[in-house]
Amino acid sequence: MGPHPAVAAIRLAVRRVLHDILTDDEPATPRPAPRRTGAYTGGHRAGHEPPSSPLVLVACSGGADSMALASALAFEAPKLGIRAGGVTVDHGLQPGSDARAGEVVLRLRELGLDPVESVAVRVGRTGGPEAAARDARYAALDAAADHHGAEAILLGHTRDDQAETVLLGLARGSGIRSLSGMAAVSGAGGRYRRPFLHLDRQTARKACMVQSLPVWDDPHNADPAYTRSRLRHEGLPALEKALGKGVVEALARTAQLSRDDADALDAWAVQAATAVRDATGLLECAKLYALPPAVRRRVLRSAAIEAGAPAGSLFARHIEEVDRLITGWRGQGAINLPGKVVAQRQGGRLVIRQG
Amino acid sequence: MGPHPAVAAIRLAVRRVLHDILTDDEPATPRPAPRRTGAYTGGHRAGHEPPSSPLVLVACSGGADSMALASALAFEAPKLGIRAGGVTVDHGLQPGSDARAGEVVLRLRELGLDPVESVAVRVGRTGGPEAAARDARYAALDAAADHHGAEAILLGHTRDDQAETVLLGLARGSGIRSLSGMAAVSGAGGRYRRPFLHLDRQTARKACMVQSLPVWDDPHNADPAYTRSRLRHEGLPALEKALGKGVVEALARTAQLSRDDADALDAWAVQAATAVRDATGLLECAKLYALPPAVRRRVLRSAAIEAGAPAGSLFARHIEEVDRLITGWRGQGAINLPGKVVAQRQGGRLVIRQG
Repeated sequence: MGPHPAVAAIRLAVRRVLHDILTDDEPATPRPAPRRTGAYTGGHRAGHEPPSSPLVLVACSGGADSMALASALAFEAPKLGIRAGGVTVDHGLQPGSDARAGEVVLRLRELGLDPVESVAVRVGRTGGPEAAARDARYAALDAAADHHGAEAILLGHTRDDQAETVLLGLARGSGIRSLSGMAAVSGAGGRYRRPFLHLDRQTARKACMVQSLPVWDDPHNADPAYTRSRLRHEGLPALEKALGKGVVEALARTAQLSRDDADALDAWAVQAATAVRDATGLLECAKLYALPPAVRRRVLRSAAIEAGAPAGSLFARHIEEVDRLITGWRGQGAINLPGKVVAQRQGGRLVIRQG
Repeated sequence: MGPHPAVAAIRLAVRRVLHDILTDDEPATPRPAPRRTGAYTGGHRAGHEPPSSPLVLVACSGGADSMALASALAFEAPKLGIRAGGVTVDHGLQPGSDARAGEVVLRLRELGLDPVESVAVRVGRTGGPEAAARDARYAALDAAADHHGAEAILLGHTRDDQAETVLLGLARGSGIRSLSGMAAVSGAGGRYRRPFLHLDRQTARKACMVQSLPVWDDPHNADPAYTRSRLRHEGLPALEKALGKGVVEALARTAQLSRDDADALDAWAVQAATAVRDATGLLECAKLYALPPAVRRRVLRSAAIEAGAPAGSLFARHIEEVDRLITGWRGQGAINLPGKVVAQRQGGRLVIRQG
């Protein structure tokens, strides 16, 4: 008798990703020998396996998704000659979070993972509590992967997380890139992998249950102070009630399609940005005018960012105003953009520079 | 003292669209002389104004959005030398709907519109109750516009309707074209115009109230049997509660951005579809492989439709399977598509035809 279907599903998902990691032409990251000395202070020590055997880490909060992921990694990695390790990040946002992180370390060790470490981070305030926690977490994971010379870090995001991310992007209303959710492969050199992006949360939970894995429910996940939590517990269920049960799957599919579309348009815009310049490198208005609006706006946005406008402060309305210098020219003056960047039309050329 | 801000807003929106209609290089539709005899049976007769003066019709249900639109058209059209008329469609779905349509005709006449007519339609079942009603409605509006030789038909869809349409598209999960909502200009020759696509429903309601225009609340709009109604009264409010008040605006902006992106990618795909063919017109697999996935999938979809696959039955999973003949070739057999269309790889060419 084979494993429970939920366990089979999580293992298959992890097996596929491990296979991808092994067959990648280029290693995801240059594989440094694990550093044993120096300034790095992140928790427990790495093991002493031969550096030739690739290491894959799981990022584990102790919640159902990442515990299921850890269990599947522990099961599948040895069969492929891969070492399996784990990292848990202590965000220090709740009393006792260090003890919790210690518990997660024990549970990961019980699964047979090695090396396993807990890394404490200090969460700032930049971009709101969720963004700040995320930034601190990824910095810690990057450092841990570098330290251990890991080939990849597996993240437990499920299709449900993906659906929530698409809705969060939708709420920004800033176009299809923000609808494209999380990538299955991301980070420098494709270091981060998300094996569960096509699995639902319920499957991960079920897999923990049938494997008798204790899981921890992060109270943040149910805290209505967090946008994602409100979305998970109120927004998405209401949307499902109105639109039917397929909403999560449709959102996840939208993410994939939007990502591919955004990639193609970005590639087009990169080409176009060269093609619309004159011999001195200035943007020619007539050539910009001939581009499809979607491509033109991407070219203008890139030009503004190159000139020094901070991407995060550059909104659709800024780009629309610059675009009107091309499509609705009636002699209007210079347009001020964030970062003291100025866009103006001069003799058939569009000049965008820091003023 | 000028008009109430809500009234000023609806008038400005209509004035802009009327201006666009007048300054379009090409007339939106060839302007036939109004037919006075023949098979056409739609209700009241057209007026007898000189055919040289352009006619713009408003499609009016008697609800707040389209009553506001009718009032603004009645106010703005004469100032631009445009005749303003109205059409109301009796869907025959509720007892007394014919009497209601008659009332709407009277109200439109009271606003000074002429010609005004009520057209009774028979709603089929194809595609569900909402789609069937929509199809019948647009067929009737088209016929009325042809009959009266109207330049354009104004529709009262607001930004809130647009947001709902984006969410309905999102639930299909079929990509960015389905996220692009309703166009400001649509139909054959750009006949349909939506002046209120950037105005919220509340403004239209307010404009009716301050102008003492009686409005009719279609019970369908509150009937939870209808997906759009559930979305309006439960889904969207819950999403706003989770994500903040800007959701409707963000969804409307997403529609516009998605539409432009989809247009650009479709244009690219049309070009690519020619560029990837060999001298005999067959698709070359190597050239298809070199395209970005988003463009390749559009080329494959168009090729399948050209070969006879019905667009409405052709889903993303079909195209993905055909795509694997290009990107994941390991000798797999022919792929069966809807409409008895078969896709197979033969000697480095992709052959898609009715089998």
